[in-house]
Amino acid sequence: MIGRLNHVAIAVPDLTAAAAQYRSVLGADVGAPQDEPDHGVTVVFITLPNTKIELLYPLGEDSPINGFLAKNPAGGIHHICYEVDDILAARDRLLGEGARILGSGEPKIGAHGKPVLFLHPKDFNGCLIELEQV
Amino acid sequence: MIGRLNHVAIAVPDLTAAAAQYRSVLGADVGAPQDEPDHGVTVVFITLPNTKIELLYPLGEDSPINGFLAKNPAGGIHHICYEVDDILAARDRLLGEGARILGSGEPKIGAHGKPVLFLHPKDFNGCLIELEQV
Repeated sequence: MIGRLNHVAIAVPDLTAAAAQYRSVLGADVGAPQDEPDHGVTVVFITLPNTKIELLYPLGEDSPINGFLAKNPAGGIHHICYEVDDILAARDRLLGEGARILGSGEPKIGAHGKPVLFLHPKDFNGCLIELEQV
Repeated sequence: MIGRLNHVAIAVPDLTAAAAQYRSVLGADVGAPQDEPDHGVTVVFITLPNTKIELLYPLGEDSPINGFLAKNPAGGIHHICYEVDDILAARDRLLGEGARILGSGEPKIGAHGKPVLFLHPKDFNGCLIELEQV
């Protein structure tokens, strides 16, 4: 069911510093910051040859990243995203297996303009998993 | 400097259950468990179209995963691994930028039989980074 690893998302306490570090110290292909007000984050995309890293920084007081950074002030890996062909079929298969979907259970349009769902970390080895339909 | 994302490593409290879940619930290509006594882990490799997931479980009392699972009983993302062409050049560039290398600073032979180094999470947004020479 799952396909490519679409991205690894890393929450960072200083987006400018983290972007500069990936660019100059790690020598990666680092994009410009993009505000995603619908998702409460500012994102910097890092393009690797086979996948992407997303640096996440809170945008607004209700950002989903605020709580994570409060618990992890240095930052940390926030989630990983797997691609699926059909997100509704994936959701129904997961629900049938007893896995929990976060929120309403209906896909939302993610930061890439495609339908996404998040799975409950307690059902998946403490790992927050995003599914994105591609 | 960094190239492909070689893998994402997830520490899990029950390797059999996690492997079965990735195989049957997430429908992924999941290998057989492999003991890596030199690294204190038993590993299950999950092959995605563009990268790998490694499920890590402690092997032995001195396993580097024991402390992580004590802090994160449900499991969690343990590290990510970036590929580099020349690990000694990468190390020297990182040291020159003030980043810290874990351990002696000399590459060890990793679970894939290739030289690896780990970077200090506090220098990289709370994220444990492995570099592997490919």
